[in-house]
Amino acid sequence: MALLHEDRLFPADERTRAIARRLYESIKGLPIVSPHGHTQARWFAQNEPFPDPVKLFVQPDHYVFRMLYSQGVTLEELEIGKQEIDDPRKVWRTFASHYYLFRGTPTRLWLDYAFQELFGLTERLSESNADLYYDTIAAQLQTPDFLPRTLYERFNIEVLATTDSPLDSLADHEAIRASGWNARIIPTFRPDPLVDPQHPGFLDNIRALGTLTSEDTFTWRGYLRALARRREYFRQMGCTATDHGHPTALTEDLGDTSAAALFEQVIKGTAYAADLEIFRGQMLTEMARMSLEDGLIMQIHPGSVRNHNAQLYAKYGRDMGADIPAPTNYVEALRPLLNRFGNERHLTIILFTLDEATYSRELAPLAGHYPCLKLGPPWWFHDSAEGMMRFRERATETAGFYNTVGFNDDTRAFLSIPARHDVARRIDAAFLGRQVAEHKLEEDEAMELATDLTVGLVRKAYKL
Amino acid sequence: MALLHEDRLFPADERTRAIARRLYESIKGLPIVSPHGHTQARWFAQNEPFPDPVKLFVQPDHYVFRMLYSQGVTLEELEIGKQEIDDPRKVWRTFASHYYLFRGTPTRLWLDYAFQELFGLTERLSESNADLYYDTIAAQLQTPDFLPRTLYERFNIEVLATTDSPLDSLADHEAIRASGWNARIIPTFRPDPLVDPQHPGFLDNIRALGTLTSEDTFTWRGYLRALARRREYFRQMGCTATDHGHPTALTEDLGDTSAAALFEQVIKGTAYAADLEIFRGQMLTEMARMSLEDGLIMQIHPGSVRNHNAQLYAKYGRDMGADIPAPTNYVEALRPLLNRFGNERHLTIILFTLDEATYSRELAPLAGHYPCLKLGPPWWFHDSAEGMMRFRERATETAGFYNTVGFNDDTRAFLSIPARHDVARRIDAAFLGRQVAEHKLEEDEAMELATDLTVGLVRKAYKL
Amino acid sequence: MALLHEDRLFPADERTRAIARRLYESIKGLPIVSPHGHTQARWFAQNEPFPDPVKLFVQPDHYVFRMLYSQGVTLEELEIGKQEIDDPRKVWRTFASHYYLFRGTPTRLWLDYAFQELFGLTERLSESNADLYYDTIAAQLQTPDFLPRTLYERFNIEVLATTDSPLDSLADHEAIRASGWNARIIPTFRPDPLVDPQHPGFLDNIRALGTLTSEDTFTWRGYLRALARRREYFRQMGCTATDHGHPTALTEDLGDTSAAALFEQVIKGTAYAADLEIFRGQMLTEMARMSLEDGLIMQIHPGSVRNHNAQLYAKYGRDMGADIPAPTNYVEALRPLLNRFGNERHLTIILFTLDEATYSRELAPLAGHYPCLKLGPPWWFHDSAEGMMRFRERATETAGFYNTVGFNDDTRAFLSIPARHDVARRIDAAFLGRQVAEHKLEEDEAMELATDLTVGLVRKAYKL
Repeated sequence: MALLHEDRLFPADERTRAIARRLYESIKGLPIVSPHGHTQARWFAQNEPFPDPVKLFVQPDHYVFRMLYSQGVTLEELEIGKQEIDDPRKVWRTFASHYYLFRGTPTRLWLDYAFQELFGLTERLSESNADLYYDTIAAQLQTPDFLPRTLYERFNIEVLATTDSPLDSLADHEAIRASGWNARIIPTFRPDPLVDPQHPGFLDNIRALGTLTSEDTFTWRGYLRALARRREYFRQMGCTATDHGHPTALTEDLGDTSAAALFEQVIKGTAYAADLEIFRGQMLTEMARMSLEDGLIMQIHPGSVRNHNAQLYAKYGRDMGADIPAPTNYVEALRPLLNRFGNERHLTIILFTLDEATYSRELAPLAGHYPCLKLGPPWWFHDSAEGMMRFRERATETAGFYNTVGFNDDTRAFLSIPARHDVARRIDAAFLGRQVAEHKLEEDEAMELATDLTVGLVRKAYKL
Repeated sequence: MALLHEDRLFPADERTRAIARRLYESIKGLPIVSPHGHTQARWFAQNEPFPDPVKLFVQPDHYVFRMLYSQGVTLEELEIGKQEIDDPRKVWRTFASHYYLFRGTPTRLWLDYAFQELFGLTERLSESNADLYYDTIAAQLQTPDFLPRTLYERFNIEVLATTDSPLDSLADHEAIRASGWNARIIPTFRPDPLVDPQHPGFLDNIRALGTLTSEDTFTWRGYLRALARRREYFRQMGCTATDHGHPTALTEDLGDTSAAALFEQVIKGTAYAADLEIFRGQMLTEMARMSLEDGLIMQIHPGSVRNHNAQLYAKYGRDMGADIPAPTNYVEALRPLLNRFGNERHLTIILFTLDEATYSRELAPLAGHYPCLKLGPPWWFHDSAEGMMRFRERATETAGFYNTVGFNDDTRAFLSIPARHDVARRIDAAFLGRQVAEHKLEEDEAMELATDLTVGLVRKAYKL
Repeated sequence: MALLHEDRLFPADERTRAIARRLYESIKGLPIVSPHGHTQARWFAQNEPFPDPVKLFVQPDHYVFRMLYSQGVTLEELEIGKQEIDDPRKVWRTFASHYYLFRGTPTRLWLDYAFQELFGLTERLSESNADLYYDTIAAQLQTPDFLPRTLYERFNIEVLATTDSPLDSLADHEAIRASGWNARIIPTFRPDPLVDPQHPGFLDNIRALGTLTSEDTFTWRGYLRALARRREYFRQMGCTATDHGHPTALTEDLGDTSAAALFEQVIKGTAYAADLEIFRGQMLTEMARMSLEDGLIMQIHPGSVRNHNAQLYAKYGRDMGADIPAPTNYVEALRPLLNRFGNERHLTIILFTLDEATYSRELAPLAGHYPCLKLGPPWWFHDSAEGMMRFRERATETAGFYNTVGFNDDTRAFLSIPARHDVARRIDAAFLGRQVAEHKLEEDEAMELATDLTVGLVRKAYKL
């Protein structure tokens, strides 16, 4: 009995499945390169056991609790947002009795993988075995095998990037380095709190940036210098990439005088909402300029309408599963940045989307032309078996494979990392298997591509 | 010889097909639950024979005549819009000689099903057998086996919802009940003629509503009370749902004073076109508020540009096959309503779309979060084999199966009901079969899901 | 050893593949009907050998050099834009060493076809055999077998349409006719340089049109008469179609007085940018009006943002692989034209798109209703195996097969014509094969459709 079938996610057709199996076999043991995600450096700095199953699998995973919430389970029942969970076993039972809701979702695949591969559980989770699951997981979490560093090694991770505010001291990253532990955990420079005037605490953040860098961050020049300094510090700490989570992909290329004037208005709080969007757009171009100088690659994650549920946001704050994608335009939005830096061969900008209509219409044509552009893997809701397949089907014919950058697990859930990479490898094997079965590629090429998609392209694009 | 193959719509791969067959076998005999459609209660109240084949298959079916029209057959040749058909046999011959146009369309599947399963015809319709078809169908229509009530029973219908104006007396529904016939035919409350100021006869409708309810419907309060009264009457007549066919999904949440002022302008005819759209949006939120009170579930069908062909509309009026989908936004449009009622667990709003780009981008993320939202099945042009498959492929990974509500036949063509449900069951079996073949689900789960998708979810969502 | 597998592009499932093979077998030998493309009449008028491999395969093919450029190869290295190539062998080596970039793209399929079928090369192109390829191709190009007319005959072309400015004298077309060579090479009337005020040299073009036609083209009446005259001349030279490459699908139907006033502003250069768009829209409707009179069919190719890369455009001009698709609306944009001429059964307007989201949402519903509308095949980035399959999957259920018009190769690369038609035939066979395997069609119908999709529909739609 098993939760996982060895042929899962491979096409049913035997001819194609056989090829997919061989391709997968060649890549399944490759190390995990994780260039973008949201795990915590603190876990590895402190190397303490993960707490109970609920803190591990339910509370931090908005994929999980958004589904339960959509079906009438309250966040109170799940004790979401609480520091200490009063009755984790009860929350776990609620989760278990609703586990059938995840049929057909990637969450189901990821969780089953963790249950079986990490905890040896092989019976499908349900109301009836909720306690067995709880006890099994809880007990194992207290063993040395489940300490963060042990898991990191067991997962065969080659490099793991966190995502960090420029205001972060990176003390945890320093502690990891100082510990002499032989692992590569690197920060990512995510300046949203400092470049998005609508970010909560924006002005405080600007002030803190000034303190941290001894620059006058309330002047345009000082602000830019301060950001450049923090980038430099991040770079010294191993960082190779920045990340930008903007509402849209808008970029701007104001002249220096206009940009400085806009910054002044932004700081004074006299800018209109439309100007705040222009400011964010200008900052993408400024970041591109700095990237050309310091070599950090850029990631742009646009198109999420954050905190769509006003009541939930008021009560629980951000990241409550209520971020909803919106239509996203790239072709006009990126033009100012591309007019300035689009032809730079030593700049890398990785584009992500939540709007699949743009894969074949805008993103593949853009990445198939501009030297600086690459396509990130399917993001968030589209980080799924069908989603990945659609990405390959729609982007490959125009952008090719080599304008993509491998897989991002993009996860907050450390234990899901191997599962997510496993899904990506299987889908790539399935897609390439079909290419071979339909004689678009020969198998030796597919073999080479399988390795490139798993480790080659990501190492190159992210300079790892 | 047969028009229908027993394996139709199942994937060709034998491994998957075998699973799909087993799943289909388990659901093909389940009763038909039809919670949304456009059949006429009068048919069942009067229980008279359907007239000739043309009145049955050609004249009322805009899928049929729009295709013929697109290929140069005139509406005059088809005698569309005429009460009495001069030469039905000639119209039928025109239809028959163009039957090849429907290759690859759902209309072909639906018609072949009716031809074979209801009339015993097994030779493909063409010019050469047009008369045979005509005579066979015409003769059988006059037999007791083809009376509406007999067909209802033969189709194994559990419940059938019609769609009705709030001004409808529901006399036919009353007559059915009074007849003692053991069937469940229920009305649906569709207030478009009373909430859309651009509906023909809007003011007359408001006046008629006043007469019907003894409310002063030219005041905001009286208008709302009158609508609530008609909802209550519909509810007493078995209605469980409302339906809203708006140009967009826009909702508004004006304060009461602003809403009353807007209503006054609308009634006076002094509102701008943009304000009429705001009024429609406000009325969606008012309807949601009433639904919370009276328990009727809401259906929203936005995004159709009605009567796109101005010449045809001038000559023939509505529903001439010239309604064309437009891009539809949900994420911003629904925000006002969701801000107010989105977290209500006892409200159900079923969203439909004609813009497939929204399945994975907006609809699945919204339904996978908000407790009040569910996704309706593929609608209209997308109520087709490929369309249903795309819906499952794009919506399931984010919304799961349990935020969907089974199938709607949504038909004006009574005889197509079994065919349409059969297509839906086969495609669900095909989709689930692939999930099992690719080891995303186990077969026992797929079996349970097959029944849920066929009868379970629809009964629950529509409170049937 | 071979570059091409005889089953390429057929579904892997054996049941489906066997049907696809039979369908393909029935159409693979049919003549090529090429109603829209960008080959040069001059080639056939002069019938001189094509120059070296680089001039043939690299320099004119923006699919090729955009991919190389996107991966950091400079246009200088490729000697793009130069009349004489200094070191074609070196350019060829650069191309060969990057040939792996085309894995998974249609370019790879097209090139491999030409390499094997025309030049007898059977080893995959790479850095190591670059010289072998170069020498083999260069040598054969000098043989009589590779003269343009010989290739035309060898390709079994029934008719080949070029694309021409109304200002073109069509001297090359005349020379072909005068030569007595038995081939059908016909012009297409593409008036963009004369109806798009933002086209470089617009006013000069208007002036030249006046000279050519002896009309006062600086008056609205004279301008329209001059265009009608050139249409008539093209028609006499065998032209059956016009083509319109507009930024959007916008149409207008101004009254004659307004149109004349707008034309005056356009000519004076006092029109706003928005008015220029209106003018283009008006001209689509004027062209439709003329088409009704002279019988030329219309093709509309909207939605490409031309010359997106400003630096490249400044340095190299148009057609540098930097045209990027944008979201395109049809349902509102076409309304003015359709309100006027939509119901004309003797008008044919063929719609193309770069925005695949419109296939099922707008284009298939429009073409499945309006008698004048037909759907062109997948265009440009979507002229690919997956792209064609998506088109059939999304458009067929609503528009049917008979509102489509077969395949356009749309190529500048003469040698790619057989390869492109071969891909289209294989994908149609694959799509129809699946329809048969899933019992949506019977095989005799699929056989008939295969021929219709290959030659029947194109001959009829383009009046060839």
